[in-house]
Amino acid sequence: MTEELTLDPAVAQTTQIIKQVINAWKAQSNTITAFFNKYDDAVYLNEVAPGRNRAIYLLGHLVSASDGLFPLFGLGERIFPKLERLFSTNPDLTFADIPTIAELKQNWETVNIALAAHFDSMQPEEWLDKHTRVSDEDFALEPTRNKLNVLMSRTNHISNHLGQLFLLPNRK
Amino acid sequence: MTEELTLDPAVAQTTQIIKQVINAWKAQSNTITAFFNKYDDAVYLNEVAPGRNRAIYLLGHLVSASDGLFPLFGLGERIFPKLERLFSTNPDLTFADIPTIAELKQNWETVNIALAAHFDSMQPEEWLDKHTRVSDEDFALEPTRNKLNVLMSRTNHISNHLGQLFLLPNRK
Repeated sequence: MTEELTLDPAVAQTTQIIKQVINAWKAQSNTITAFFNKYDDAVYLNEVAPGRNRAIYLLGHLVSASDGLFPLFGLGERIFPKLERLFSTNPDLTFADIPTIAELKQNWETVNIALAAHFDSMQPEEWLDKHTRVSDEDFALEPTRNKLNVLMSRTNHISNHLGQLFLLPNRK
Repeated sequence: MTEELTLDPAVAQTTQIIKQVINAWKAQSNTITAFFNKYDDAVYLNEVAPGRNRAIYLLGHLVSASDGLFPLFGLGERIFPKLERLFSTNPDLTFADIPTIAELKQNWETVNIALAAHFDSMQPEEWLDKHTRVSDEDFALEPTRNKLNVLMSRTNHISNHLGQLFLLPNRK
């Protein structure tokens, strides 16, 4: 088996490309981590633009989004299920009582470490298999509705909010 | 050759994954197109947030970035080389005389159509080959510095600015 894998250049290509997709996700996630390690916690209570989401909300939103990959990929339940109501299904300022920046940063790290361990061990066939929210019938019609596509979408989702975080005023 | 491709599932996987990476780039580019087709041209002269880039600058910046893929991938020269000085190497408001929104939208379409034609015909080996700004020596050490990685980075770059554009005030 190992010998066959080594001999087939297409297998090596597939493995490398999937690794690059995973690395792009890790790179965007790490940029979020670095951004939230850069300033005093109070800075992240500001809105990224007038009347828009606070930075702390976007961090909670990104933790919740990544945490949602566990059930979406059939890897298990969310680690921090309470965050979904606070940061995904309701807008910013709905709840006065939300976790602190320090807590959310810890949650972000926990989720990312657990996801990375799964991702690094997933085989190409698993990446190209359907996620849990698409039916067998729909997947037969649209085979690109697979886990790899979800990961690329989520990487772009992180980039999207990263662009907004870069606008955060009053940093110190 | 065709038969061999059909028989090797790894080749089919590689081809599908590369197509998904290209489609992710197309999807982000199309979202930019849709955003700039949505409002009156005057709306895009506003800053996305106080003291930040105007939407028109971000469009020019994205055209210039995508146009730069021609030389970076060894596909030819930039189609609109003047945009680089206006929107990549200098910040917003440096020049009073810049193209109109209508012109930039046309440039954006021209660049994307030409790039898509190249991308759709590139083979896996070309995607995994080095781009023109990395030396043979560096590429031997870091084989992920290939064209596919550049395309994924650029897709995230588009998403990053798209997140900022979504904050644009005073839309009508």
